[in-house]
Amino acid sequence: MAAAREAFAENGFETTTVRAIAARAQVDPAMINHYFGSKEKLFLAAVDAPLDPHDLLETAEPVLPEDVGEHMVRTLLRAWDSPAGVAGQALLRSAFRGPTGAALLREFIDLRILRPMLDRLEPDPVMARWRGSLAASQLGGLALVRYVLRIEPLASAPTEQVVAAVAPQLQHYLTGEVGRPG
Amino acid sequence: MAAAREAFAENGFETTTVRAIAARAQVDPAMINHYFGSKEKLFLAAVDAPLDPHDLLETAEPVLPEDVGEHMVRTLLRAWDSPAGVAGQALLRSAFRGPTGAALLREFIDLRILRPMLDRLEPDPVMARWRGSLAASQLGGLALVRYVLRIEPLASAPTEQVVAAVAPQLQHYLTGEVGRPG
Repeated sequence: MAAAREAFAENGFETTTVRAIAARAQVDPAMINHYFGSKEKLFLAAVDAPLDPHDLLETAEPVLPEDVGEHMVRTLLRAWDSPAGVAGQALLRSAFRGPTGAALLREFIDLRILRPMLDRLEPDPVMARWRGSLAASQLGGLALVRYVLRIEPLASAPTEQVVAAVAPQLQHYLTGEVGRPG
Repeated sequence: MAAAREAFAENGFETTTVRAIAARAQVDPAMINHYFGSKEKLFLAAVDAPLDPHDLLETAEPVLPEDVGEHMVRTLLRAWDSPAGVAGQALLRSAFRGPTGAALLREFIDLRILRPMLDRLEPDPVMARWRGSLAASQLGGLALVRYVLRIEPLASAPTEQVVAAVAPQLQHYLTGEVGRPG
């Protein structure tokens, strides 16, 4: 697991192979596949994610582009208001433990939340990354203020009220006018 | 200092007196005043704040209501891009260390950032707190994503570009239509 964390943090999810992690850990790649099933599941275990946001964000019916902001805010609140919220705090805390923790969480957010959402909304890859990082600032800040700092009244506000106030702002980052990086 | 942290975290800044802290620490209140000068300075020392955001936000000319969002984003970037940014990370990390750390940081943000700004913008105290907590979610998320998680391109974007994208969103929380809490 330590080998997986280092490899994913150093090289990112895409370029890291199960074979490379196996070599680093001096074990057989087949053993990793046997225990974890896939590189994705190994990654989720390395990040110590309480759940896979990608699974939560997937719905039977595709979400309309103009509703993605609301969908993401609702999904965030549902996950953090559930028993997994405590593990969410631990996950956020891990980003402060040094570059490996921050890199792993960054990769996790990018891979399991931002990319799957932005892929459908923004064809320009430069703009998709810009929108994704802006969206992360609103989603991350919501988690920070509501669940860690617990600043009232946002900490105790009912879901509908948070959605009404925050979703349009998030939606703006996803599909509105946000300039163009560099 | 431990006595001050506990007292401020338990009772908040307003209701905590230097006398009560002195009693808790079993020292003379005059000694605290001698070393720290004021309750505010004692509070800043207890929080371990690298600087006082209230001082940074104060300007010679009053900022126009419609420019407060931009002013706050600029001030945040200036502080975190300075050498104090490292201490800012430590301050944010302290919120994860347990209820005392979170309560102290919450009180610090409320007292030295949100209230001085909202006092001038929103006469209704219920709305002022709601707007303040929403603004904190955008400001806190910006610090988290740019300086801790370092999600690109927001992590390296020039100040002007961040201001152009984020300030209107923050401004909306400060003076726009955000509903009314419960």
